[in-house]
Amino acid sequence: MRLTGNLLLGQTSTPGVGAAVHAINPATAQPLEPAYPGASREQVAQACALAEAAFDTYRATTLEQRALFLDAIANGLEALGDALVERAVAETGLPKARIQGERGRTCQQLRLFARVVRAGEWLDVRIDPALPERQPLPRPDLRQRQVALGPVAVFGASNFPLAFSVAGGDTASALAAGCPVVVKAHGAHPGTSELVGRALAQAVSDCGLPEGTFSLLYGAGHEVGIALVSDPRIKAVGFTGSRTAGIALCRAAQARSEPIPVYAEMSSINPVFLFEAALGARTDALAQGFVASVTQGAGQFCTNPGLVIARQGPDVQRFIDAASAQLRQVAAQTMLTPAIHQAYETGVGQLRAHPQVQAVASGLAGQGPNQGQAQLYVTQAEAFLADPGLAHEVFGAASLLVVCRDDRQVHQVAERLEGQLTATLHLDAADIDSARLLLPVLERKAGRILVNGWPTGVEVCDAMVHGGPFPATSDARTSSVGSAAILRFLRPVCYQDVPDALLPQALQQGNPLRLRRLLDGRREA
Amino acid sequence: MRLTGNLLLGQTSTPGVGAAVHAINPATAQPLEPAYPGASREQVAQACALAEAAFDTYRATTLEQRALFLDAIANGLEALGDALVERAVAETGLPKARIQGERGRTCQQLRLFARVVRAGEWLDVRIDPALPERQPLPRPDLRQRQVALGPVAVFGASNFPLAFSVAGGDTASALAAGCPVVVKAHGAHPGTSELVGRALAQAVSDCGLPEGTFSLLYGAGHEVGIALVSDPRIKAVGFTGSRTAGIALCRAAQARSEPIPVYAEMSSINPVFLFEAALGARTDALAQGFVASVTQGAGQFCTNPGLVIARQGPDVQRFIDAASAQLRQVAAQTMLTPAIHQAYETGVGQLRAHPQVQAVASGLAGQGPNQGQAQLYVTQAEAFLADPGLAHEVFGAASLLVVCRDDRQVHQVAERLEGQLTATLHLDAADIDSARLLLPVLERKAGRILVNGWPTGVEVCDAMVHGGPFPATSDARTSSVGSAAILRFLRPVCYQDVPDALLPQALQQGNPLRLRRLLDGRREA
Repeated sequence: MRLTGNLLLGQTSTPGVGAAVHAINPATAQPLEPAYPGASREQVAQACALAEAAFDTYRATTLEQRALFLDAIANGLEALGDALVERAVAETGLPKARIQGERGRTCQQLRLFARVVRAGEWLDVRIDPALPERQPLPRPDLRQRQVALGPVAVFGASNFPLAFSVAGGDTASALAAGCPVVVKAHGAHPGTSELVGRALAQAVSDCGLPEGTFSLLYGAGHEVGIALVSDPRIKAVGFTGSRTAGIALCRAAQARSEPIPVYAEMSSINPVFLFEAALGARTDALAQGFVASVTQGAGQFCTNPGLVIARQGPDVQRFIDAASAQLRQVAAQTMLTPAIHQAYETGVGQLRAHPQVQAVASGLAGQGPNQGQAQLYVTQAEAFLADPGLAHEVFGAASLLVVCRDDRQVHQVAERLEGQLTATLHLDAADIDSARLLLPVLERKAGRILVNGWPTGVEVCDAMVHGGPFPATSDARTSSVGSAAILRFLRPVCYQDVPDALLPQALQQGNPLRLRRLLDGRREA
Repeated sequence: MRLTGNLLLGQTSTPGVGAAVHAINPATAQPLEPAYPGASREQVAQACALAEAAFDTYRATTLEQRALFLDAIANGLEALGDALVERAVAETGLPKARIQGERGRTCQQLRLFARVVRAGEWLDVRIDPALPERQPLPRPDLRQRQVALGPVAVFGASNFPLAFSVAGGDTASALAAGCPVVVKAHGAHPGTSELVGRALAQAVSDCGLPEGTFSLLYGAGHEVGIALVSDPRIKAVGFTGSRTAGIALCRAAQARSEPIPVYAEMSSINPVFLFEAALGARTDALAQGFVASVTQGAGQFCTNPGLVIARQGPDVQRFIDAASAQLRQVAAQTMLTPAIHQAYETGVGQLRAHPQVQAVASGLAGQGPNQGQAQLYVTQAEAFLADPGLAHEVFGAASLLVVCRDDRQVHQVAERLEGQLTATLHLDAADIDSARLLLPVLERKAGRILVNGWPTGVEVCDAMVHGGPFPATSDARTSSVGSAAILRFLRPVCYQDVPDALLPQALQQGNPLRLRRLLDGRREA
């Protein structure tokens, strides 16, 4: 499977005419062929025009057609075999087993959305039948369903070359909702993106869908992304990446003559609260679990536990000692890109230089380029409360432990936090009352609350929330992982006294899709 | 019931210290006592601080407590009796029967949300039970529910002094979701707002809720509103009003260090498509229905049919003649405020002066101040397509009929439209095929599609959508009328492996609220 370096404008594979992106193998610092010339403004516009042209046809597909399409994409990904895994490993420096696992998760995600589409609950059908005799005015027949928002721009993420990229969660949920997708590939893994994009375009063709259902763009710098978000034919945006880039996309979306929703997942330090009884009872196990979570994947997870909060006392010191001992044995890991490695070095450098922060342990130093060395820091609550900079995300395997004087100070630290993807509590029975007092704060701050686990695993299921208040995301009302993500790309339309012959199937009197409708205020069995 | 002119900062009735608002009786142009001094920045901050302090307590109320509170507000509104109706009539110039009807609708709306809260479906409980034996990794126990966003700022609307004001739809849905509310009263009806606000504050007290659950502010100019939306304790905004004001609030909300959602309902011309067979078969009835809809309430409805689209031919001319004859007999009506009347005069003046627009009929001229005279204009599709200004809303009893050469031009006009609250089709059996071709366009453009009715009635029920793409609203993903409006003020939180003792009732293993949960992918019966 030779890589072409071409854009995919619908079914047309064509070279970009802008500045080129070159992948770099972060483990060797060597560039990888081929070059990926970026899309011109005209090519961005062409992808958007194709998406707009495809929209009414694609959103009119039956639930079964759309589900088969999502299944076909999953099959296509699997059929790429080792070529995909090898390229992704070369472009990201991630271990082969991790990439294989991520491929499985990506395919599972596509098949989950196929099931969600078939079940049709997302159509949220509501029917209030006519009441022609009602006084003083009759009630018309009113029927509501959800329709797709329109073409969606999806930005691939650096840290999940498959699960949050070309055929990742944002693409899967937007396609499930009936939205054509234009992907801007992440510059760190264009070859992986091309392979996945070609498989996706093949599924579009095999399923007889309009070619504009999917396009794939590359671009160096911000221009292609901003042009894409600014195109009037794009109606929503999915993004996972840095706070700076996410906010820039939100601004561009708001500056349009028709502003559009942006679902940007940006920045989270995922606080972990160690309660007293739990900390005393299983210090070593907690230290081990913590170090495993903070160093997993070189710490390059949105849900990496970058902050630990505990009450002062001998158990905290035992925890620090045990975690330090563990951490010192952790090998350095290749980070995703030179820029990410450099940002990590800058971040940990700032912590190290902070007069109120103590560097207590470092992992093993690495050999070769872009090696991320794990780091553990400790500070006091007073210092943390006095300096908002200490709450900034350092993307990588570093964590800051904040020691609090008492429960009140734990509360203060929690209240001071910005929005988070997750908040974790480690507790035993004796901690339940303290935890109960903290819970309302955490519900306001985080999208997911965990007890006695670690935040780095994100299950793809119905109940998952991968989201949270700003700056964790730009829109706390949704989740980017799990079946609820389909709701992000929908809007309701009401049909009043529309005859059956003109109604969409979901709303027809005979209920041909056999949906469980909200009928006259009651949910059908 | 003497009016005080005071703000309500929680349970404290206190005068504002800013520039005063004075209501004007639009029928006499005389000011109405008392003066309503505006809130200072400190008073705005005080209301927001009270709301924040109330939030965790208020959102922790049981479903039954919250429903009783909503019912108590409705009872309190009714108990205000004629004093409320008389003041609202004096402040708005609207007929007594209309205000009485609107009071009924406002109370019905509050009671609908009480039922919605009790039913609990909005909690959208999703449970994926633990799979401890799963390979390669066990699945944790995951449970999702919806929680309230936080304190909400609500802006009263000029044209619905009860149903879209202090205790209107935005307030009812935000309170139902568990959000404290700070209302900025509309300057046109501060006395009505005070009466309703006092009833609402009484219900807060009677129900034993924290005082910050509700506050009421006044303010001349934009300062109070911008200060309110910019306060970091406010987490969402509900607004109904002009496009200019709505966009200003959206900008203020985006400029915050934590941007927040704004639900602004702004501008819609509500196109009505007259298909050939229907127009031929019932020209007079259509003309009569149209004139009744466009002149109802002096045309001061968001859903007023400001645009009519039809194919050229003798039936169109007959429709114009019949509508003109009807319209010429319509009495002028008092408009809501001098500013609204002035804007209407400016808008119809621009239509009258347009070289490609023909003024075909005027209603009867009024006597006295602020009289809105109904107007009908006609233009050709070429002129409409060439000048986007012809698609701007003229708030009041004016409508523009656009004559198209053929179905293709009807399509072009539809595609050119901005987002709308409603789109209406008048059709007979022979028109079904033409209508079917237009429907996908209208689904993209409007929140509600009506057949053989008129858009000015908005039913409060489950299936209603009062919303639509920009600029009809700033967020097409929601409705401001009907039970689905509660969803605007919620966000999901996931609880992972949280013990039953710490779980909210909605998620507890025993399902004490008896909710129909999504359990392991299946909806419970």
